[in-house]
Amino acid sequence: MSSDKAKKQEAIDAARNRIRSNRSERTDIHELAKSIVDGKRDGLAKGITLIESNQPEERESAHELLKEIKSLSNNSTSSLRIGITGIPGVGKSTFIEKLGVDLINEGHKVAVLAVDPSSRNTGGSILGDKTRMEKLSSNEMAFIRPSPAAETLGGVARATMEAILLCEAAGYDRVLVETVGVGQSEISVRDMVDVFTLLLIGGAGDELQGIKRGIVEMADLVVVHKADGDKVQTCNDTASAYRNSLHLFPQPKGEVAVEVLTASSLSGEGHDKFRSSLNSLVQKWKENDFFSSQRLRQRTERMEQHAKDLLFLRMKESEGGMKAWDELEQQMNEGELSAFSAAWIWANKKK
Amino acid sequence: MSSDKAKKQEAIDAARNRIRSNRSERTDIHELAKSIVDGKRDGLAKGITLIESNQPEERESAHELLKEIKSLSNNSTSSLRIGITGIPGVGKSTFIEKLGVDLINEGHKVAVLAVDPSSRNTGGSILGDKTRMEKLSSNEMAFIRPSPAAETLGGVARATMEAILLCEAAGYDRVLVETVGVGQSEISVRDMVDVFTLLLIGGAGDELQGIKRGIVEMADLVVVHKADGDKVQTCNDTASAYRNSLHLFPQPKGEVAVEVLTASSLSGEGHDKFRSSLNSLVQKWKENDFFSSQRLRQRTERMEQHAKDLLFLRMKESEGGMKAWDELEQQMNEGELSAFSAAWIWANKKK
Repeated sequence: MSSDKAKKQEAIDAARNRIRSNRSERTDIHELAKSIVDGKRDGLAKGITLIESNQPEERESAHELLKEIKSLSNNSTSSLRIGITGIPGVGKSTFIEKLGVDLINEGHKVAVLAVDPSSRNTGGSILGDKTRMEKLSSNEMAFIRPSPAAETLGGVARATMEAILLCEAAGYDRVLVETVGVGQSEISVRDMVDVFTLLLIGGAGDELQGIKRGIVEMADLVVVHKADGDKVQTCNDTASAYRNSLHLFPQPKGEVAVEVLTASSLSGEGHDKFRSSLNSLVQKWKENDFFSSQRLRQRTERMEQHAKDLLFLRMKESEGGMKAWDELEQQMNEGELSAFSAAWIWANKKK
Repeated sequence: MSSDKAKKQEAIDAARNRIRSNRSERTDIHELAKSIVDGKRDGLAKGITLIESNQPEERESAHELLKEIKSLSNNSTSSLRIGITGIPGVGKSTFIEKLGVDLINEGHKVAVLAVDPSSRNTGGSILGDKTRMEKLSSNEMAFIRPSPAAETLGGVARATMEAILLCEAAGYDRVLVETVGVGQSEISVRDMVDVFTLLLIGGAGDELQGIKRGIVEMADLVVVHKADGDKVQTCNDTASAYRNSLHLFPQPKGEVAVEVLTASSLSGEGHDKFRSSLNSLVQKWKENDFFSSQRLRQRTERMEQHAKDLLFLRMKESEGGMKAWDELEQQMNEGELSAFSAAWIWANKKK
């Protein structure tokens, strides 16, 4: 009996501890959400670290945080998400620094996030080094964050998208997302920003071999960058060649023709024109409703894609899931099964 | 007791019938597979009807058929899958008819399949009417099949891909897949063929408004079609404008530059050049191994995509699955959940 009593007491204590720790966790999340919405940079950084976690058990806290933030803040409606891509050497950092400082001078708060699928826990190759954006990183109205690690649950894109939501809740109304135009990353960035900007190097096509096919047609704005010194003429030529080329291509969904500009972040030349083109594009998209319909489509597609990826992952990680997959893939490659048959048999396996 | 006996007898009879019907089904499938591999056109048509079925219970027979065919035939390695897209009015049917007849004259067997996502059970808008390809459809070495219905299990693309496998087993070593370049269909066709051909109309960009953005960069070969009569010069101009434009774009994965040709299916002009460009492209791809690596990648990606779609569908169709989805989507759209959170909660729901 006394042993039973002891057990009972133990269970009560455990329950109490659970409630207490739950409660303190709740309080933590609430405090964290408050500090983010109040615009505290360290709170924002901490919040992003939480959502970047790949611990499934921290996922609940991440949900909680996003919910709390939503109930505390009501901005984000006037935010603008700008993607910037281009091959290494095109000058993304200098372009973003100049753009960021200009936007701040216009009264905006600017967040810079990076998507680099090659990044490891060390921080990745782009934006790993804040000194590359000295002026911007020392500015109180700017927040700069390197790419999440590639091993993040749901991928780099998922973590970045949630970081955008946190930045917006923290009052950053201009979110710049930098990515390298060589892998799959720019496709996911294209689907999380409002305006996708492609930076090009002046001169003939050879420099572009590093860019992925299809990127050019994904761009809403094209900028031939580093148009300074003796390269101005070359850049102008490249711009007009692209202008003529893009003219042949179908009109973008937003029904506004793609502008091809030149700019130098050294002299600052072309940056005012870039911002005015950006604003006029967004203005037109708000008038023809493309702006909000694009955001809605992006969200819905992302939710569906995440759901599919999660179900697939869970099935693969279930007992025998991986082995069955490999065997069926083998049979498919030997021509014994069509891809659909292989998938069908696998998906209908009892777990 | 006698009632028990009767029941027992009933059960035995039922089991016998099951075995018998299974056996006869097996025999049917075996016979069907044999008639396909023997090159019987009605067998092939029947086989495609079977794989197009959206009855889950017929899926087993479809697997069986594909397996049987594999064990009976061993060609398909020398097959070439050619996708042909372009907006309505560009002359896809006349182009395919001329190409098909030429290929037959060179000793090939030609199958023509269509992918039309707008098609209903009635047969769809493209290729619904065989009379559009009179010469080809009356030729013993050709097999023409309209688009499967859009309601097909796994989609039009799945059914078409499996139809390609059946056609190849039946000895059709040139499979032409026609699609309209206006929807999502050309993306899935791009992923089931070896060479993707875009037909364009001569003249300035206006006519291209109907084409989807991104299609131009997906093409391996571009043909400005209907280059006859007084339109030859216009078509030549369009071709050279595209040639210059595509030159600015990154090189395709297969490392062979995209050729832009002109052709008339009325005069036949340009068709010989098209086939020689096609052959030379495939030749280079076989040399640099892109041909087989592309097929492997296509299969693997397709299997994964089908698996995800099937798991997603099953979850959505499970009890309460759809309702939970809608509720979470609503919460996401109100900003209470990120897309990933919404997907996560949904995918982790107990069924």
